[in-house]
Amino acid sequence: MHVSREGHLWTPSAGLQQGLPSIGVIEPSSNRPADKIHDAVVIGAGYAGLIAARDLTTAGYDVLLLEGRDRIGGRTWSADIEGYPYEMGGTWVHWNQPFVWRELARYSMSDDLEISPIAGQGLEDTWVNRSNGSTTKLGSQKEFDILESAVKKFVNVDGKFGREAIPFPHNAHHNPVIGEYDKLSFANRLAQIEDDLTPIEREVLEIFLSVTSGGTMEESSFFDMLRWWALNNYDMLMFKEMCLTFKLKDGQSKLARQIFDEASATGKLTYQFSAPVAIVEDQGSYVVVTTRLGVQYQAKRAISTIPLNVLKDVTFKPDLLPGKRAASEMGHANHCVKVHAEVANPALRTFSGWNKGGLGMAFGDGTTPAGNTHVVAFGCSYPDLRLEPTADAGQKALAAMVAFAPTLFEDIRRLVFHDWNTDEFALGTWEFLRPGMATEYLDVLKARQGNILFASADWAKGWRGFIDGAIEDGARVAKELGGELGHSQHTLPLRVAGNDG
Amino acid sequence: MHVSREGHLWTPSAGLQQGLPSIGVIEPSSNRPADKIHDAVVIGAGYAGLIAARDLTTAGYDVLLLEGRDRIGGRTWSADIEGYPYEMGGTWVHWNQPFVWRELARYSMSDDLEISPIAGQGLEDTWVNRSNGSTTKLGSQKEFDILESAVKKFVNVDGKFGREAIPFPHNAHHNPVIGEYDKLSFANRLAQIEDDLTPIEREVLEIFLSVTSGGTMEESSFFDMLRWWALNNYDMLMFKEMCLTFKLKDGQSKLARQIFDEASATGKLTYQFSAPVAIVEDQGSYVVVTTRLGVQYQAKRAISTIPLNVLKDVTFKPDLLPGKRAASEMGHANHCVKVHAEVANPALRTFSGWNKGGLGMAFGDGTTPAGNTHVVAFGCSYPDLRLEPTADAGQKALAAMVAFAPTLFEDIRRLVFHDWNTDEFALGTWEFLRPGMATEYLDVLKARQGNILFASADWAKGWRGFIDGAIEDGARVAKELGGELGHSQHTLPLRVAGNDG
Repeated sequence: MHVSREGHLWTPSAGLQQGLPSIGVIEPSSNRPADKIHDAVVIGAGYAGLIAARDLTTAGYDVLLLEGRDRIGGRTWSADIEGYPYEMGGTWVHWNQPFVWRELARYSMSDDLEISPIAGQGLEDTWVNRSNGSTTKLGSQKEFDILESAVKKFVNVDGKFGREAIPFPHNAHHNPVIGEYDKLSFANRLAQIEDDLTPIEREVLEIFLSVTSGGTMEESSFFDMLRWWALNNYDMLMFKEMCLTFKLKDGQSKLARQIFDEASATGKLTYQFSAPVAIVEDQGSYVVVTTRLGVQYQAKRAISTIPLNVLKDVTFKPDLLPGKRAASEMGHANHCVKVHAEVANPALRTFSGWNKGGLGMAFGDGTTPAGNTHVVAFGCSYPDLRLEPTADAGQKALAAMVAFAPTLFEDIRRLVFHDWNTDEFALGTWEFLRPGMATEYLDVLKARQGNILFASADWAKGWRGFIDGAIEDGARVAKELGGELGHSQHTLPLRVAGNDG
Repeated sequence: MHVSREGHLWTPSAGLQQGLPSIGVIEPSSNRPADKIHDAVVIGAGYAGLIAARDLTTAGYDVLLLEGRDRIGGRTWSADIEGYPYEMGGTWVHWNQPFVWRELARYSMSDDLEISPIAGQGLEDTWVNRSNGSTTKLGSQKEFDILESAVKKFVNVDGKFGREAIPFPHNAHHNPVIGEYDKLSFANRLAQIEDDLTPIEREVLEIFLSVTSGGTMEESSFFDMLRWWALNNYDMLMFKEMCLTFKLKDGQSKLARQIFDEASATGKLTYQFSAPVAIVEDQGSYVVVTTRLGVQYQAKRAISTIPLNVLKDVTFKPDLLPGKRAASEMGHANHCVKVHAEVANPALRTFSGWNKGGLGMAFGDGTTPAGNTHVVAFGCSYPDLRLEPTADAGQKALAAMVAFAPTLFEDIRRLVFHDWNTDEFALGTWEFLRPGMATEYLDVLKARQGNILFASADWAKGWRGFIDGAIEDGARVAKELGGELGHSQHTLPLRVAGNDG
C-alpha cells in the first residue's frame, strides 16, 4: 500500500509523523498525459470529480483528470493503519442518501456497512463536562433525550418542527420564508429560545451545534441547520442514524477507488496526480489549464470541482463571476477538527463524551484489530483548538482527547488526524454556510462560465456539504456535458463560449 | 398525443371505453429493427428495462428493446385526460428512495413533486364504514393515530418496532430471524396480537394491510410487511410520506420518456413495440428471441424484465431454473385494483374513506383542471371485486366507489382504471410475496442463466415491488453486462454460456 503525504500519526514512542498509508494513493501518479485536446478536463479527484470523470469516460468521452494531491477522495479518504481504516474526512452514509447509495449498489457495496457508535448498557457511558467544572454522567438514552429535546426546541420555528418551513428537503428554498431563517445565526436562534432550554440542554445543544457547523455560534446560518434537520426526516433518531451511524467497513477510499477504477478501465481516462492547478483559461473554443509547474493541458470543456473556500486561490480567465468570488473570499464557516484515538480500553466502545471547547464531542467508533477502542472526536477549531502540522500538534490533540474523561483515556496508543483547515486544497471541512450565504450565493456558485462548469458538494441541491451532495453535483455537470454530445460520435463538439455563465 | 390500447374510461354518458391517451405510447412502434446480432436484447420496457437499455446504450452498446405493449412504463404509466395525468399503476416517489430519486435529479425533475392526500381541517373528513353497517366519522389526525397505533402493534416483534428484526432495510435478510417472520401470513400475525387491538384498530388495520399487499390475509407474508415498515424508517408518518404522498406533477410517463429518449438519442437503441415475446433461447454464444408472430432477433445477451407472475408464460430454452419456474407458477399475492374517480365535489379533496371489501381505501389525490376532485381508491380484488374488462366493469367500479360515502360521491364524472390482474403482461400489480417465498426464491429469481439475465422490481434488493426497485435492478444487470466489456471497444464479446446460472 502506498503512503500519502497527507495526515498525521502520533504515537507515544515516535511522536508526530506526517503521512498515512491509503489505498487512495495513485502510483505512478500519471498514466502519460497525452499532448492533445481532451474532451473534458476534470480538476479535482474528490467524489464530485471522480463521478464526473466516471460518467463521462463510461459514456465514451476522453477525459483528463488533474489532482493536486497524491490521492483520490478530496475531503473524504481513509487511512489504513494495521488493517484498520480511519476515516480522515467524510465518513457516514445511509440508504436514504440517494446518490451515494446508488453508487454503493453499483459496486455491490451496499451490504458493507458497519455500525459506528453503540449505545451502552451501562448508566454512565456519557460524560458531559460542564462549564462549571463538574461532570454529569448519563446513560445513552438520557443523553439522547436531552439532545432531542434541545434540538427540537431549536428547529421548531413553525409548530411543526420544520416540516412547514422546509417541506421538500431537496428543494430547501421552495418556501420563501427560509430567507428569514437564513438571516439568523445559531446565536440569534439560541437567543430566541434561551428561556425554554434547561442548563444541560443548553450546554449539550451548543456543543452539538458547533460540531454540526464546525463554526462559532455567530458564524453559522440557522437555515443550514434547519435544512440538515429536514434532510434527516425532521427526526433526531434519523439525524443520528443518517449522519453518524453507518460507515463502510473497508473505508471510503474503497468506494472512491471503485469509481476511479471503472473510469480508468474504459481506456478513456488520462490522469495526473500531484499537479495543483494555477490557471484555468477559457480561450473561447477550448480551455487551457496551467499547473503550478507551468505544464499546460487543453480540453474542450473544464469541470472545476475546486471547493468553495479554495476557488479564490485559482486564477480563472475570464475572472470568476463576482458572486462566486465574493462567496469564496467570505468562505464557509466550517473549520472542524477531527481526531481519531486508539485507546487500550474496551469499555470506551460505548462511550460518549461532551466538552466545551477544544474537542467537543467524542464517541466509540469501532474496535481495532489489536482489540483496542477506536474513539473519534470532533471539535470546532476556532478559537479553541488548531492542529496545524507543527511539532506540538500531537500533544495538543492528546490533551484535547484526554479531557473528555481523564481516567478512561489513560492509555492512548495512537492518534490519527488530518488538518483540513491548513490543507491548501480544502481550507475547511464539510461546507456549512454563514448567515445569508445560501440565499445570496448558491445559484451563482452552480452557474457555468462558458466552457467551464463547476461541481461540488458545496453547492449541491440535496445533501449539500455531504458525500452524497458531491456525487449529486458531479453527476449533474457530467449529464450537462453529455447533453452537448452530437450523439453520433462519442466526442464533444468544439464550442465557442457564449454569455451563458 | 397517442392513445394506448390499455386502460379503461367510464363516463355516465358514454359508458365504458377501452384505451387511454398517454405520452408513454411510442409511435411509430418500431425504428426499423436491423437484421443483425445486437449486443443485448432487453425484453420489456418498464422501468427495469428502460434503465437497462439507457445504461447500456449510453455506454456505447447496441441494444434492441422489445415490448409487448404499445407503450413504455410496464406496471407504471400515466394516462393524460384533459391535461391531467392519472397514474394507472406505480405513483408515489420520495427522496429517500435512492434509485428513482437519482433519476429524477438526472432529468431535472426533482422539484416536480405534487402532494397527493391533504389532511382536512374538518373533524369528519374520514369515513370508516364498519362491518356492522355503521359509519364512524373521524378527523384526519384521529384517523392517523388509530392507524399508527394498530400498525405499530402489528410490526412490534422485537420490542423495538422492527429495528432489531431488520436493521438494514436494503439488506432485509441480514438477520436470520426473519425466516421465522416469513413463515407467518398476515392472518397468523393478526392472531398473535388480536387481544391488543381495539375494534376500530382491527378494522382499519385489516383494510390497510389488504391494500398494502393486494392479497388476502392468508396469502400475504408478514415478513414483506415488516420489510416495508423498515424501508419506511420504522415510522408511520414516513410510511405515509414515502408510499402515498409525493407524485410527479406531469405523471410517471414523463420520467419514463426521459429515460427512453436518452437511450434513443444515443443512436444505439433499436426498438419494437407491440411485439410480445414467445421464446427466449440461449444458443450458447448468443440468444435468439422469437416473438408470438414468429419474428426472430439475435443478441449476444438477453435481459428479461418479465415480471414474476408472467415468467412462466414465456418459453425459455434451456428451461427456467426450477426455482424461478416454481416461484412464477405460485405467483405473488398482489391482485390490487386501483380506480380513479373525478367527482364534482371539491370537499372530497381532503376526504379519506375506509371500506371492508370491494374498494377498501380512498382519498383525495388532486384537483382536475375542471375544478373537480380526483379521488383514488384501492381494493383487494379477490374475492370481492374484479374489474375484468367486461361490459359491466364501469358499473361495478362505480358502485364500489360510491360505497365509500354515498352522499359525497353523487356526481361522479369519470372513472379511470387499468385491470392489471387480467393484463397478460402483468397478471397482478406491485409484487407482494406469499409466506415463505422471500426466503425460498429471491436468490434464484435474481440468478443469471448463461447469456440471459433477469431484472425486475419483483426481486430488487431494497424497494422490492416499487418503482425504485425496478430502477435498482435494471441498473444492476446493465452494470453486470458492462463488466463483460473488453473496454477497448464498446461492444460485447460473444460468450459461451457456462454453468453460472
